[in-house]
Amino acid sequence: MSAKIFPTAQDAQNAFYEALERSDLEAMMAVWSEDEDIVCVHPAGQRLAGQAQVREAWRQMFAGGPGMRVKVAQRVAVNGMMLAVHSVHEHITVTGEQHARPSIVATNVYLRTPAGWRMVVHHASPAPAEPAADATPAAPPGPKTLH
Amino acid sequence: MSAKIFPTAQDAQNAFYEALERSDLEAMMAVWSEDEDIVCVHPAGQRLAGQAQVREAWRQMFAGGPGMRVKVAQRVAVNGMMLAVHSVHEHITVTGEQHARPSIVATNVYLRTPAGWRMVVHHASPAPAEPAADATPAAPPGPKTLH
Repeated sequence: MSAKIFPTAQDAQNAFYEALERSDLEAMMAVWSEDEDIVCVHPAGQRLAGQAQVREAWRQMFAGGPGMRVKVAQRVAVNGMMLAVHSVHEHITVTGEQHARPSIVATNVYLRTPAGWRMVVHHASPAPAEPAADATPAAPPGPKTLH
Repeated sequence: MSAKIFPTAQDAQNAFYEALERSDLEAMMAVWSEDEDIVCVHPAGQRLAGQAQVREAWRQMFAGGPGMRVKVAQRVAVNGMMLAVHSVHEHITVTGEQHARPSIVATNVYLRTPAGWRMVVHHASPAPAEPAADATPAAPPGPKTLH
């Protein structure tokens, strides 16, 4: 289906967050394994399993066009020969909003396929504010617009 | 540290949910990899990383003693030689409560270590009720008590 080859799990992850920022459905689905055993959990959302459910949710999410910046931080990684797991915090800034959204914790799992590394699991959930965040001023807003 | 050997990821997962039901801290920590690269996210909780944080959260959770039953369902699994990922729904019933709690979606990642399969990631978050659940009567309560 797709000609994209990601030589490492990190390459697949970079492409995932680029597709998310660009609201690019085809680029997003090119990051995912073509297998039916894929799982996606959006923050506070139901578990989506298989190509059709995962694609439809991204299609709906991207319908409004691009409008967010995602800063990925505090990665914890466990790497195998065939599978890699990255735990990250996502700091999302939406165009037109003054402050960053509450951060998201995500577990991203990548599988080494004949077509390079692909995502098989994205599990994201809201992360409560950390104590340090309450004691310091809010971070300055990110760049206002992408386009 | 521990003499427990889990020959498969599923064995480690079974031990995980048994320890959870028994509120058994030592049995729980025997399921986890002894590495510092472990990650645990409880529903609506912050990401916990490393032995000390993960252990302390279970210690607090287990302080009241056992009192829940966990039914694990709808597993999606991706298995590698060294890593295995299980996506499950957890249906939790708390002793003394009439109805099951809202279900939890969990991503469990297991690593094949020299000491057998161990957990390296547990990411749990509340799953909204599925449409079908609204249309049918609530499930009957589970067994009232364990002890």
